[in-house]
Amino acid sequence: MKLAACVEYNGAMFSGWQRQRGSTSVQEVVETALAGIANHPLAAVAAGRTDAGVHASGQVIHFETDSIRSEWSWRRGANALLPRGVTVLWVVPVAESFHARYSAVARRYRYIILNRQVRSSILDGRVAWDYRQLNVDAMQQAARLLVGERDFSAFRGSHCQAKSAVRNLRQFDVWHCNEWIWADTEANGFLQHMVRNLVGALLEVGTGAQEPDWVMRLLDSRDRCQGGVTAPAHGLYLTAVKYPSGFELPPAPAPCRFW
Amino acid sequence: MKLAACVEYNGAMFSGWQRQRGSTSVQEVVETALAGIANHPLAAVAAGRTDAGVHASGQVIHFETDSIRSEWSWRRGANALLPRGVTVLWVVPVAESFHARYSAVARRYRYIILNRQVRSSILDGRVAWDYRQLNVDAMQQAARLLVGERDFSAFRGSHCQAKSAVRNLRQFDVWHCNEWIWADTEANGFLQHMVRNLVGALLEVGTGAQEPDWVMRLLDSRDRCQGGVTAPAHGLYLTAVKYPSGFELPPAPAPCRFW
Repeated sequence: MKLAACVEYNGAMFSGWQRQRGSTSVQEVVETALAGIANHPLAAVAAGRTDAGVHASGQVIHFETDSIRSEWSWRRGANALLPRGVTVLWVVPVAESFHARYSAVARRYRYIILNRQVRSSILDGRVAWDYRQLNVDAMQQAARLLVGERDFSAFRGSHCQAKSAVRNLRQFDVWHCNEWIWADTEANGFLQHMVRNLVGALLEVGTGAQEPDWVMRLLDSRDRCQGGVTAPAHGLYLTAVKYPSGFELPPAPAPCRFW
Repeated sequence: MKLAACVEYNGAMFSGWQRQRGSTSVQEVVETALAGIANHPLAAVAAGRTDAGVHASGQVIHFETDSIRSEWSWRRGANALLPRGVTVLWVVPVAESFHARYSAVARRYRYIILNRQVRSSILDGRVAWDYRQLNVDAMQQAARLLVGERDFSAFRGSHCQAKSAVRNLRQFDVWHCNEWIWADTEANGFLQHMVRNLVGALLEVGTGAQEPDWVMRLLDSRDRCQGGVTAPAHGLYLTAVKYPSGFELPPAPAPCRFW
């Protein structure tokens, strides 16, 4: 039997989604908790393998089990066994053909920046902080230019294993409210560090170091070395994963906001 | 020379505002940081002596010094010396007659509840969590009844040292948005644990254990033993302190919100 689950986590407390020797991954604690309810070892497959420090408010996973439990028992049991920093939002049975990663048709990320002169004490580790005065209109202009099906080689991490760097960036919008700036982005898939590198380029534009259309020259160069810095992991949230409606998954939770 | 400052902190990391032997208080780290900039020991007086776990987004303090520094140097220097979890938002010179505690004419607190079946992994320690289905309309009805100049003996902590339990509760409103419920309250002053005890009583009403007008019988009893539980410290934020406009302090920052 196959089950899908939605998982929320504070990335600051983990070495990323994927299991690694010598550090605590989200995958490890989720598999351990679910195995405790299933009464047998199991493997969890996630839609997005988030890096260390990256948060999720709507990660989707699947796992297989022969154990019969109610949706309520799976969720309540898993949350009782999970450490602080990870919460299972829902668990539902799903068709055998479902695969959390390969069935996904789109992923959504939100990048959150506190743009004020002093750092946050209350949201330390939950948001990125930039003390420089950022021009949001210029950032939004640059973001819009990047939307479309494009070769994002200039924005991929050096350890990226994807065969092709072509992705369909369906949304890339920058918003602001008081001291907060956030970027919402959706694509059929993302390359390693892609959102953080895209935001890093927007920051170059936001500070005035580059004009908005510089991001197109950067894109065309297909050269990561021309880009801005990689924006810090702790500003990034995986907010939703979209699947064909036939799988009948519950809707994604409301994305994180602090403004 | 007298200076006033606005301080933001994550109460989960400290034993409360006030200095205590054997544990780390906000007062201790703030005084140490400011002393480092002043080059002499100094004492900081706060508007509200928040308990362990209680946060502040707009605590106001004052301190005295003979050292001449720019407002920018005080703020930047203090933030460089402060540990994570405390941030100085502004520092300004203020009239000799100013006293952070005694000059205050009103204090504002916000209490934040995540009302959903599972706890928060991302805002763990920053908000209170209640898994029970809460009736916000009933809570708001009860809150409105309590507004006015009244004897709040039924809502004071057992170690409260105030001579009189009479306070003028000018605002007590309950709001909600999606899974969030928050209460905003303003009074000329608050007794020990008063906001947490008021919210504890609202929770009795929210769950349906009591009708809204029960809070008036509770108030009239002047008996803390009749009340609900004390709501947890980590849902509470000191958001603003009001002073006569003649002191010309900067406005309070926008209060915390996560919805």
